[in-house]
Amino acid sequence: MKITKLGEFGLIKELQKKCSGTLSDVLTGIGDDAAVVKVTDRKFLITSDMLIEDVHFDLSFTTFFQLGYKFLAVNISDILAMGGTPKYFLVSLGIPGDYDSEDIYELYSGVKKIAGKFGIAIIGGDTCASGQGLVLSGTLIGNANRIVSRSGAKEGDGIFITDTLGDSAIGLQLLKTRGKRVHIFSPASPRLKLIKKHLMPDIKQLKSTSKLTSMIDVSDGLLADLSHICDESKVGAIIYKENIPLSEELRSISNSMGQDPVQYALKGGEDYALLYTARPTYKTNDYKIGEIIKEGRYIIDSKGKKTLFKPEGYEHFKKISDKRSAISSQLKS
Amino acid sequence: MKITKLGEFGLIKELQKKCSGTLSDVLTGIGDDAAVVKVTDRKFLITSDMLIEDVHFDLSFTTFFQLGYKFLAVNISDILAMGGTPKYFLVSLGIPGDYDSEDIYELYSGVKKIAGKFGIAIIGGDTCASGQGLVLSGTLIGNANRIVSRSGAKEGDGIFITDTLGDSAIGLQLLKTRGKRVHIFSPASPRLKLIKKHLMPDIKQLKSTSKLTSMIDVSDGLLADLSHICDESKVGAIIYKENIPLSEELRSISNSMGQDPVQYALKGGEDYALLYTARPTYKTNDYKIGEIIKEGRYIIDSKGKKTLFKPEGYEHFKKISDKRSAISSQLKS
Repeated sequence: MKITKLGEFGLIKELQKKCSGTLSDVLTGIGDDAAVVKVTDRKFLITSDMLIEDVHFDLSFTTFFQLGYKFLAVNISDILAMGGTPKYFLVSLGIPGDYDSEDIYELYSGVKKIAGKFGIAIIGGDTCASGQGLVLSGTLIGNANRIVSRSGAKEGDGIFITDTLGDSAIGLQLLKTRGKRVHIFSPASPRLKLIKKHLMPDIKQLKSTSKLTSMIDVSDGLLADLSHICDESKVGAIIYKENIPLSEELRSISNSMGQDPVQYALKGGEDYALLYTARPTYKTNDYKIGEIIKEGRYIIDSKGKKTLFKPEGYEHFKKISDKRSAISSQLKS
Repeated sequence: MKITKLGEFGLIKELQKKCSGTLSDVLTGIGDDAAVVKVTDRKFLITSDMLIEDVHFDLSFTTFFQLGYKFLAVNISDILAMGGTPKYFLVSLGIPGDYDSEDIYELYSGVKKIAGKFGIAIIGGDTCASGQGLVLSGTLIGNANRIVSRSGAKEGDGIFITDTLGDSAIGLQLLKTRGKRVHIFSPASPRLKLIKKHLMPDIKQLKSTSKLTSMIDVSDGLLADLSHICDESKVGAIIYKENIPLSEELRSISNSMGQDPVQYALKGGEDYALLYTARPTYKTNDYKIGEIIKEGRYIIDSKGKKTLFKPEGYEHFKKISDKRSAISSQLKS
């Protein structure tokens, strides 16, 4: 049913039904002036993200389900990057009147899919009309006993990453070449695996964060995000180029395209892997990619050659000044 | 400076500076992956609102300062309507690249003006590019010991309102007739007073909410919002038409326009006064406008004539199907 026909209150009623069955500490969910949660004696973490059609996503490349999934995924990634556990999500939607309510329900299905994986309750938000395109704004609230910020890295710490890098960036490129939406459940080919990494990033929570000294999630790209840690912790860093984890799929597809896979890993962004530092004695199965040093930021290759690096990565406003370049950065968030 | 030139990180740095000096229980504000607040043993209230340019506001009618002020005001109203105290605000902005950063700072000044009145800390959010118009999405978090929901009204309760109604609706009409922005600090004329009520609603917190049985803020209009209380509480209501508080300004201007002032009060919306119910013995200086009855919804005039009422008010999607009617509902939120 068209949103104009269903009306705002009709839509809220439907969404309320779809979001029932929340956690026992949610005292009031969707439908009153505000949501209410019972507070326990921990710290609260709060993060917000906004996604705008034709800037951050293009509906000719993503299904509503994938969009909803990724929308919550990037917020979860922010909470995990602080050492927290995600708990409550508020979804605000600006919806063009001629959109179909079924599409909005599909978007909610994507949100609920990943919410279910992490035990997150959808407790509220806002729905309103949008004159031009679809706008999503989400606020995710989590809790934590101990916060891991960006500012605690110390000289001598190891630098670790939880997942391969660059898959999402090349996945975006492959998706644009393909030029249309693709429903992906069990990706059969390397290309589909990479596209899926872009559309529905695989968010992983660390079992324990008690020994970490700093953490961030890789959204703007390894170099840009590691630079945030260096800036906030007032330290330098060395990255061992050959230690950067690359997937088989990224290696084979980038080679076939005549591209250097490491460049996707360094600057691509939207990996949503966790990048963290810990004392040198820290034991983990995650990938150790470098070390925190007193000052300077370097990449060292297998021959020992040192290159200075800068925080290169995606920056939102730089690309939006003309419409064409905005579209070329579509699906970025 | 144009946003494109300043860049995302530049803008975040500036906003971070402007939002420093937060409450002692804000452990981390803007600048990390998520904001962190220390939790006390109370209930948390969370509300989100989204405002979209040319749907909810028109920058040819509102200054950035007024827009920022109202943006937070409507969220405060939601928290107060639950019996809570507003505490933390997250601001997400989608900004067209050719907007000037000074305008965004002015918007923040408006947000900070009302934040200061209520002791609210601005702790985070998101800034991103928008391809078409300005998009604001805010999440306000408050706390409360006792929640006042929409569902507790009982037969025999009095119905109360904290302020005059209809001023905002006629103010919007006057503003549109005027056809341009107006900076208002100390409004001299009745017309400017009404316009100010629309642009910068006067939000008042009740001294105590411990004896209230239900509450809502008047955003969609008295009839629509009282209907929400009736729906959720499964009761009826009688409104005494002549008890509805009307300002002198509304009376005189609507009379000069040949309009019935009561219609603005019943259906206008965006008053952001608090509408609540309490036991008949409740003592207050607020306006008593009616009573909760077992079933049926009526307005009674001074001659005792009963008329059935329906939840008439503003509904977002109904008006957006064509662009012209969207514009005609501009500045509505």
